[in-house]
Amino acid sequence: MEVKNTGFSLSLLLFFCCFFVEAFVAVNGRAIVSTKPDPADAAATARWLASQNSWGVLSTISQDLGGAPFGNVVSFSDGLPGHGRGIPYFYLTPLDPTARNALKDERSSFSISEHPLGTCRKTDPENPTCSKLTLNGKLKLIDGKSKEAEYAQRALFTKHPEMKDWPKDHDFQIFKLVIENIFLIDWFGGAKPLTVAEYLRYGMDQQRAI
Amino acid sequence: MEVKNTGFSLSLLLFFCCFFVEAFVAVNGRAIVSTKPDPADAAATARWLASQNSWGVLSTISQDLGGAPFGNVVSFSDGLPGHGRGIPYFYLTPLDPTARNALKDERSSFSISEHPLGTCRKTDPENPTCSKLTLNGKLKLIDGKSKEAEYAQRALFTKHPEMKDWPKDHDFQIFKLVIENIFLIDWFGGAKPLTVAEYLRYGMDQQRAI
Repeated sequence: MEVKNTGFSLSLLLFFCCFFVEAFVAVNGRAIVSTKPDPADAAATARWLASQNSWGVLSTISQDLGGAPFGNVVSFSDGLPGHGRGIPYFYLTPLDPTARNALKDERSSFSISEHPLGTCRKTDPENPTCSKLTLNGKLKLIDGKSKEAEYAQRALFTKHPEMKDWPKDHDFQIFKLVIENIFLIDWFGGAKPLTVAEYLRYGMDQQRAI
Repeated sequence: MEVKNTGFSLSLLLFFCCFFVEAFVAVNGRAIVSTKPDPADAAATARWLASQNSWGVLSTISQDLGGAPFGNVVSFSDGLPGHGRGIPYFYLTPLDPTARNALKDERSSFSISEHPLGTCRKTDPENPTCSKLTLNGKLKLIDGKSKEAEYAQRALFTKHPEMKDWPKDHDFQIFKLVIENIFLIDWFGGAKPLTVAEYLRYGMDQQRAI
Protein backbone atom coordinates (compact mmCIF):
# COMPACT_ATOMS: atom_id res chain seq x y z
CA MET A 1 0.00 0.00 0.00
CA GLU A 2 2.83 2.36 0.93
CA VAL A 3 4.55 1.58 -2.38
CA LYS A 4 1.34 2.38 -4.28
CA ASN A 5 1.04 5.73 -2.50
CA THR A 6 4.62 6.60 -3.34
CA GLY A 7 3.94 5.67 -6.94
CA PHE A 8 0.85 7.85 -7.00
CA SER A 9 2.73 10.78 -5.47
CA LEU A 10 5.52 10.39 -7.99
CA SER A 11 3.02 10.31 -10.85
CA LEU A 12 1.38 13.43 -9.49
CA LEU A 13 4.75 15.14 -9.20
CA LEU A 14 5.65 14.09 -12.74
CA PHE A 15 2.32 15.38 -14.01
CA PHE A 16 2.88 18.80 -12.46
CA CYS A 17 6.49 18.92 -13.71
CA CYS A 18 5.29 18.14 -17.25
CA PHE A 19 2.52 20.71 -16.92
CA PHE A 20 4.93 23.47 -15.96
CA VAL A 21 7.45 22.52 -18.64
CA GLU A 22 4.65 22.56 -21.25
CA ALA A 23 3.43 25.92 -19.98
CA PHE A 24 6.96 27.27 -20.22
CA VAL A 25 7.33 26.01 -23.78
CA ALA A 26 3.99 27.55 -24.74
CA VAL A 27 5.17 30.98 -23.61
CA ASN A 28 8.85 30.88 -24.49
CA GLY A 29 8.92 28.49 -27.44
CA ARG A 30 11.60 26.30 -25.85
CA ALA A 31 11.95 24.47 -22.56
CA ILE A 32 15.10 24.92 -20.51
CA VAL A 33 15.62 21.23 -20.02
CA SER A 34 19.35 20.79 -19.66
CA THR A 35 21.24 21.91 -16.62
CA LYS A 36 24.37 24.04 -16.67
CA PRO A 37 27.38 21.95 -17.74
CA ASP A 38 30.60 21.68 -15.78
CA PRO A 39 32.59 24.86 -16.61
CA ALA A 40 35.62 22.65 -17.26
CA ASP A 41 33.80 21.36 -20.36
CA ALA A 42 34.15 24.36 -22.68
CA ALA A 43 32.36 22.82 -25.68
CA ALA A 44 29.39 21.70 -23.56
CA THR A 45 29.07 25.13 -21.94
CA ALA A 46 29.29 27.04 -25.24
CA ARG A 47 26.74 24.76 -26.92
CA TRP A 48 24.43 24.97 -23.89
CA LEU A 49 24.52 28.78 -24.09
CA ALA A 50 23.77 28.69 -27.83
CA SER A 51 21.00 26.17 -27.39
CA GLN A 52 19.19 27.73 -24.42
CA ASN A 53 19.34 31.43 -25.25
CA SER A 54 16.72 32.97 -27.52
CA TRP A 55 18.37 36.31 -28.26
CA GLY A 56 21.75 38.00 -28.35
CA VAL A 57 23.58 40.95 -29.85
CA LEU A 58 24.77 40.69 -33.43
CA SER A 59 27.50 43.15 -34.34
CA THR A 60 28.43 44.15 -37.85
CA ILE A 61 30.57 46.80 -39.52
CA SER A 62 28.31 49.82 -39.94
CA GLN A 63 27.96 51.19 -43.44
CA ASP A 64 26.15 54.29 -42.13
CA LEU A 65 28.69 55.06 -39.40
CA GLY A 66 31.91 54.90 -41.41
CA GLY A 67 32.99 51.39 -40.48
CA ALA A 68 32.31 51.60 -36.75
CA PRO A 69 31.01 48.45 -35.07
CA PHE A 70 27.21 48.31 -34.76
CA GLY A 71 25.53 45.94 -32.28
CA ASN A 72 21.88 45.00 -32.62
CA VAL A 73 19.57 42.93 -30.41
CA VAL A 74 18.27 39.98 -32.46
CA SER A 75 16.51 36.67 -31.93
CA PHE A 76 18.16 33.46 -33.12
CA SER A 77 17.99 29.69 -33.08
CA ASP A 78 20.63 27.02 -33.46
CA GLY A 79 18.16 24.18 -34.05
CA LEU A 80 15.11 22.39 -32.78
CA PRO A 81 14.71 22.17 -28.97
CA GLY A 82 17.28 19.79 -27.57
CA HIS A 83 18.89 19.33 -30.99
CA GLY A 84 20.81 22.55 -31.55
CA ARG A 85 23.79 22.34 -33.88
CA GLY A 86 25.62 25.40 -32.55
CA ILE A 87 25.29 27.50 -35.72
CA PRO A 88 23.13 30.56 -35.04
CA TYR A 89 20.43 31.33 -37.61
CA PHE A 90 18.76 34.74 -37.79
CA TYR A 91 15.61 36.11 -39.43
CA LEU A 92 16.55 39.59 -40.59
CA THR A 93 15.00 42.30 -42.73
CA PRO A 94 17.05 44.64 -44.91
CA LEU A 95 14.93 47.44 -43.39
CA ASP A 96 17.24 47.00 -40.39
CA PRO A 97 20.93 48.09 -40.64
CA THR A 98 22.36 44.71 -39.55
CA ALA A 99 21.27 42.80 -42.67
CA ARG A 100 22.32 45.69 -44.94
CA ASN A 101 25.73 45.87 -43.24
CA ALA A 102 26.29 42.11 -43.60
CA LEU A 103 25.43 42.22 -47.31
CA LYS A 104 28.29 44.74 -47.75
CA ASP A 105 30.76 43.31 -45.23
CA GLU A 106 30.16 39.84 -43.77
CA ARG A 107 32.45 40.22 -40.74
CA SER A 108 30.25 39.79 -37.66
CA SER A 109 30.24 38.97 -33.98
CA PHE A 110 27.42 37.37 -31.99
CA SER A 111 27.33 37.59 -28.19
CA ILE A 112 25.14 35.82 -25.67
CA SER A 113 25.11 35.65 -21.90
CA GLU A 114 24.13 33.08 -19.29
CA HIS A 115 22.35 35.80 -17.35
CA PRO A 116 18.96 35.55 -19.13
CA LEU A 117 18.88 31.82 -18.38
CA GLY A 118 18.56 32.53 -14.66
CA THR A 119 21.41 30.25 -13.60
CA CYS A 120 23.72 33.00 -12.36
CA ARG A 121 21.36 35.19 -10.38
CA LYS A 122 23.73 35.40 -7.42
CA THR A 123 26.66 36.77 -9.41
CA ASP A 124 27.16 39.88 -11.47
CA PRO A 125 26.61 39.50 -15.25
CA GLU A 126 30.31 40.40 -15.74
CA ASN A 127 31.52 37.89 -13.15
CA PRO A 128 33.47 35.23 -15.10
CA THR A 129 31.42 32.42 -13.54
CA CYS A 130 28.33 33.88 -15.26
CA SER A 131 29.35 32.49 -18.61
CA LYS A 132 29.35 34.42 -21.86
CA LEU A 133 30.00 33.46 -25.42
CA THR A 134 31.05 35.47 -28.46
CA LEU A 135 31.09 33.80 -31.86
CA ASN A 136 32.99 35.66 -34.56
CA GLY A 137 32.77 34.92 -38.25
CA LYS A 138 30.92 35.75 -41.46
CA LEU A 139 27.20 36.54 -41.53
CA LYS A 140 25.84 34.97 -44.70
CA LEU A 141 22.47 35.11 -46.42
CA ILE A 142 21.15 31.57 -47.02
CA ASP A 143 19.63 30.53 -50.34
CA GLY A 144 15.90 30.53 -49.52
CA LYS A 145 15.31 27.37 -51.57
CA SER A 146 18.05 25.28 -49.97
CA LYS A 147 17.61 22.39 -47.54
CA GLU A 148 19.52 24.41 -44.98
CA ALA A 149 16.98 27.25 -45.27
CA GLU A 150 14.19 24.75 -44.62
CA TYR A 151 15.99 23.44 -41.52
CA ALA A 152 16.85 26.95 -40.29
CA GLN A 153 13.30 28.20 -40.79
CA ARG A 154 11.93 25.30 -38.78
CA ALA A 155 14.51 25.98 -36.07
CA LEU A 156 13.66 29.70 -36.00
CA PHE A 157 9.87 29.37 -36.17
CA THR A 158 9.85 26.68 -33.47
CA LYS A 159 11.80 28.81 -31.05
CA HIS A 160 10.15 32.09 -32.11
CA PRO A 161 6.58 31.19 -33.13
CA GLU A 162 5.54 34.76 -33.94
CA MET A 163 8.18 35.02 -36.70
CA LYS A 164 5.97 33.14 -39.16
CA ASP A 165 3.46 36.00 -38.98
CA TRP A 166 5.94 38.84 -39.43
CA PRO A 167 5.07 41.14 -42.35
CA LYS A 168 5.77 39.52 -45.74
CA ASP A 169 6.56 42.91 -47.32
CA HIS A 170 9.50 43.38 -44.91
CA ASP A 171 11.43 40.79 -46.89
CA PHE A 172 12.74 38.85 -43.90
CA GLN A 173 15.45 36.40 -44.91
CA ILE A 174 17.49 33.78 -43.12
CA PHE A 175 21.12 34.48 -42.33
CA LYS A 176 23.63 32.26 -40.60
CA LEU A 177 26.89 32.93 -38.83
CA VAL A 178 29.74 30.90 -40.27
CA ILE A 179 31.84 30.66 -37.13
CA GLU A 180 35.58 31.30 -37.38
CA ASN A 181 36.53 32.17 -33.82
CA ILE A 182 35.12 31.46 -30.37
CA PHE A 183 35.50 33.54 -27.21
CA LEU A 184 34.13 31.82 -24.11
CA ILE A 185 34.39 32.92 -20.52
CA ASP A 186 32.86 30.51 -18.02
CA TRP A 187 35.28 30.58 -15.10
CA PHE A 188 38.22 32.51 -13.67
CA GLY A 189 41.47 32.57 -15.64
CA GLY A 190 40.51 34.20 -18.94
CA ALA A 191 38.98 32.87 -22.15
CA LYS A 192 38.68 29.08 -22.43
CA PRO A 193 40.53 27.47 -25.33
CA LEU A 194 37.87 26.12 -27.69
CA THR A 195 38.24 25.50 -31.41
CA VAL A 196 35.39 25.83 -33.89
CA ALA A 197 35.74 22.11 -34.70
CA GLU A 198 35.42 21.12 -31.02
CA TYR A 199 32.40 23.40 -30.65
CA LEU A 200 30.60 22.07 -33.74
CA ARG A 201 31.49 18.44 -33.08
CA TYR A 202 29.96 18.48 -29.59
CA GLY A 203 26.92 16.17 -29.39
CA MET A 204 27.11 15.33 -33.11
CA ASP A 205 25.95 11.74 -32.57
CA GLN A 206 22.65 13.10 -31.27
CA GLN A 207 22.28 15.38 -34.31
CA ARG A 208 22.48 12.51 -36.78
CA ALA A 209 19.36 11.05 -35.21
CA ILE A 210 17.15 13.98 -36.31
CA MET B 1 -14.29 50.14 11.84
CA GLU B 2 -14.43 49.26 8.16
CA VAL B 3 -12.20 52.25 7.40
CA LYS B 4 -9.69 51.12 10.02
CA ASN B 5 -9.55 47.62 8.56
CA THR B 6 -8.95 48.99 5.08
CA GLY B 7 -6.18 51.18 6.48
CA PHE B 8 -4.60 48.20 8.19
CA SER B 9 -4.82 46.08 5.04
CA LEU B 10 -3.24 48.86 3.01
CA SER B 11 -0.42 49.21 5.55
CA LEU B 12 0.15 45.48 5.43
CA LEU B 13 0.21 45.55 1.63
CA LEU B 14 2.64 48.47 1.67
CA PHE B 15 4.87 46.65 4.15
CA PHE B 16 5.06 43.58 1.93
CA CYS B 17 5.65 45.69 -1.19
CA CYS B 18 8.53 47.49 0.56
CA PHE B 19 9.90 44.19 1.80
CA PHE B 20 10.00 42.69 -1.68
CA VAL B 21 11.48 45.83 -3.24
CA GLU B 22 14.19 45.86 -0.56
CA ALA B 23 14.87 42.15 -1.14
CA PHE B 24 15.14 42.80 -4.86
CA VAL B 25 17.60 45.65 -4.32
CA ALA B 26 19.69 43.49 -2.00
CA VAL B 27 20.11 40.85 -4.70
CA ASN B 28 20.22 42.94 -7.85
CA GLY B 29 21.70 46.18 -6.61
CA ARG B 30 18.90 48.28 -8.11
CA ALA B 31 15.14 48.30 -7.83
CA ILE B 32 13.06 48.36 -10.98
CA VAL B 33 10.90 51.19 -9.80
CA SER B 34 9.82 53.06 -12.89
CA THR B 35 7.32 51.69 -15.33
CA LYS B 36 7.80 51.43 -19.07
CA PRO B 37 7.37 54.85 -20.71
CA ASP B 38 5.01 55.57 -23.58
CA PRO B 39 6.82 54.34 -26.74
CA ALA B 40 5.97 57.67 -28.38
CA ASP B 41 8.45 59.29 -25.98
CA ALA B 42 11.75 58.16 -27.49
CA ALA B 43 14.01 59.95 -25.00
CA ALA B 44 12.11 58.56 -22.00
CA THR B 45 12.22 55.02 -23.39
CA ALA B 46 15.93 55.13 -24.21
CA ARG B 47 16.83 56.57 -20.81
CA TRP B 48 14.60 54.01 -19.07
CA LEU B 49 16.41 51.18 -20.86
CA ALA B 50 19.81 52.63 -19.91
CA SER B 51 18.76 53.19 -16.32
CA GLN B 52 17.07 49.85 -15.63
CA ASN B 53 19.39 47.41 -17.39
CA SER B 54 22.47 46.12 -15.61
CA TRP B 55 24.35 44.57 -18.56
CA GLY B 56 24.62 44.75 -22.32
CA VAL B 57 26.95 43.94 -25.18
CA LEU B 58 29.83 46.30 -25.88
CA SER B 59 31.28 45.98 -29.36
CA THR B 60 34.68 47.23 -30.40
CA ILE B 61 36.98 46.84 -33.40
CA SER B 62 39.02 43.71 -32.74
CA GLN B 63 42.78 44.08 -32.83
CA ASP B 64 43.22 40.28 -32.72
CA LEU B 65 40.74 39.55 -35.53
CA GLY B 66 41.96 42.00 -38.16
CA GLY B 67 39.45 44.77 -37.59
CA ALA B 68 36.32 42.60 -37.32
CA PRO B 69 33.67 43.72 -34.83
CA PHE B 70 33.94 42.04 -31.43
CA GLY B 71 30.97 42.02 -29.02
CA ASN B 72 31.42 41.31 -25.33
CA VAL B 73 28.93 40.92 -22.48
CA VAL B 74 29.67 43.59 -19.87
CA SER B 75 28.04 45.16 -16.83
CA PHE B 76 27.45 48.90 -16.76
CA SER B 77 25.80 51.74 -14.88
CA ASP B 78 24.58 55.14 -15.99
CA GLY B 79 24.24 56.54 -12.46
CA LEU B 80 22.81 56.03 -9.02
CA PRO B 81 19.41 54.29 -8.82
CA GLY B 82 16.73 56.62 -10.12
CA HIS B 83 19.31 59.24 -11.10
CA GLY B 84 20.92 57.83 -14.23
CA ARG B 85 22.42 60.35 -16.63
CA GLY B 86 22.28 58.15 -19.72
CA ILE B 87 26.05 57.82 -20.18
CA PRO B 88 27.12 54.20 -19.71
CA TYR B 89 30.15 53.59 -17.49
CA PHE B 90 32.04 50.30 -17.55
CA TYR B 91 34.59 48.62 -15.27
CA LEU B 92 37.00 46.85 -17.60
CA THR B 93 40.30 45.05 -17.31
CA PRO B 94 42.94 45.11 -20.06
CA LEU B 95 43.14 41.32 -19.54
CA ASP B 96 39.92 41.32 -21.62
CA PRO B 97 40.05 42.16 -25.36
CA THR B 98 37.39 44.91 -25.17
CA ALA B 99 39.49 47.33 -23.12
CA ARG B 100 42.58 46.58 -25.21
CA ASN B 101 40.63 47.15 -28.43
CA ALA B 102 39.25 50.48 -27.20
CA LEU B 103 42.70 51.72 -26.23
CA LYS B 104 43.75 51.21 -29.88
CA ASP B 105 40.50 52.24 -31.60
CA GLU B 106 37.81 54.01 -29.58
CA ARG B 107 34.92 53.32 -31.98
CA SER B 108 32.34 51.30 -30.04
CA SER B 109 28.72 50.26 -29.90
CA PHE B 110 26.71 49.38 -26.81
CA SER B 111 23.45 47.42 -27.10
CA ILE B 112 20.77 46.71 -24.50
CA SER B 113 17.35 45.11 -24.66
CA GLU B 114 14.08 45.49 -22.80
CA HIS B 115 13.81 41.71 -22.58
CA PRO B 116 15.81 41.24 -19.35
CA LEU B 117 13.53 43.78 -17.62
CA GLY B 118 10.60 41.40 -17.92
CA THR B 119 8.21 43.92 -19.48
CA CYS B 120 7.94 42.22 -22.86
CA ARG B 121 7.50 38.59 -21.91
CA LYS B 122 4.60 38.11 -24.31
CA THR B 123 6.50 39.22 -27.39
CA ASP B 124 9.60 37.95 -29.10
CA PRO B 125 12.87 39.74 -28.19
CA GLU B 126 13.14 40.87 -31.85
CA ASN B 127 9.56 42.16 -31.96
CA PRO B 128 9.84 45.97 -32.34
CA THR B 129 7.55 46.55 -29.35
CA CYS B 130 10.19 44.86 -27.16
CA SER B 131 12.41 47.90 -27.20
CA LYS B 132 16.14 47.89 -27.86
CA LEU B 133 18.77 50.55 -27.75
CA THR B 134 22.17 50.81 -29.40
CA LEU B 135 24.47 53.67 -28.46
CA ASN B 136 27.37 54.27 -30.81
CA GLY B 137 30.37 56.45 -30.02
CA LYS B 138 33.86 56.48 -28.53
CA LEU B 139 34.84 54.27 -25.60
CA LYS B 140 37.19 56.35 -23.46
CA LEU B 141 39.29 55.56 -20.42
CA ILE B 142 38.49 58.02 -17.61
CA ASP B 143 41.22 59.68 -15.57
CA GLY B 144 41.08 57.71 -12.30
CA LYS B 145 41.62 60.83 -10.20
CA SER B 146 38.87 62.92 -11.81
CA LYS B 147 35.52 63.86 -10.26
CA GLU B 148 33.83 61.94 -13.04
CA ALA B 149 35.71 58.76 -12.05
CA GLU B 150 34.49 59.21 -8.49
CA TYR B 151 30.89 59.60 -9.69
CA ALA B 152 31.19 56.68 -12.14
CA GLN B 153 32.72 54.38 -9.52
CA ARG B 154 29.89 55.14 -7.11
CA ALA B 155 27.38 54.48 -9.90
CA LEU B 156 29.06 51.19 -10.85
CA PHE B 157 29.67 49.90 -7.32
CA THR B 158 26.10 50.74 -6.26
CA LYS B 159 24.58 48.81 -9.14
CA HIS B 160 27.20 46.04 -9.08
CA PRO B 161 28.27 45.66 -5.44
CA GLU B 162 30.70 42.80 -6.07
CA MET B 163 32.85 45.00 -8.36
CA LYS B 164 34.56 46.63 -5.38
CA ASP B 165 36.02 43.23 -4.44
CA TRP B 166 37.28 42.31 -7.91
CA PRO B 167 41.01 41.48 -7.98
CA LYS B 168 43.19 44.58 -7.65
CA ASP B 169 45.94 43.01 -9.78
CA HIS B 170 43.56 42.82 -12.77
CA ASP B 171 43.90 46.59 -13.16
CA PHE B 172 40.18 47.28 -13.66
CA GLN B 173 39.61 50.82 -14.88
CA ILE B 174 36.56 52.94 -15.62
CA PHE B 175 35.61 53.61 -19.22
CA LYS B 176 32.71 55.63 -20.56
CA LEU B 177 30.94 55.69 -23.87
CA VAL B 178 30.89 59.18 -25.36
CA ILE B 179 27.67 58.85 -27.35
CA GLU B 180 27.58 60.09 -30.92
CA ASN B 181 24.66 58.19 -32.42
CA ILE B 182 21.50 56.56 -31.07
CA PHE B 183 19.54 53.67 -32.56
CA LEU B 184 16.27 53.01 -30.76
CA ILE B 185 13.50 50.62 -31.75
CA ASP B 186 10.49 50.72 -29.45
CA TRP B 187 7.54 50.37 -31.82
CA PHE B 188 6.66 49.49 -35.41
CA GLY B 189 7.93 51.75 -38.18
CA GLY B 190 11.71 51.59 -37.85
CA ALA B 191 14.21 53.41 -35.67
CA LYS B 192 12.90 56.35 -33.66
CA PRO B 193 14.47 59.71 -34.39
CA LEU B 194 16.39 60.69 -31.24
CA THR B 195 19.37 63.04 -31.05
CA VAL B 196 22.15 62.66 -28.49
CA ALA B 197 21.19 66.07 -27.05
CA GLU B 198 17.56 65.02 -26.58
CA TYR B 199 18.69 61.78 -24.96
CA LEU B 200 21.12 63.44 -22.54
CA ARG B 201 18.82 66.35 -21.72
CA TYR B 202 15.99 64.06 -20.63
CA GLY B 203 15.25 64.45 -16.89
CA MET B 204 18.15 66.87 -16.41
CA ASP B 205 16.29 68.91 -13.77
CA GLN B 206 16.23 65.84 -11.56
CA GLN B 207 19.97 65.29 -12.04
CA ARG B 208 20.86 68.72 -10.69
CA ALA B 209 19.29 67.76 -7.39
CA ILE B 210 21.89 65.01 -6.70
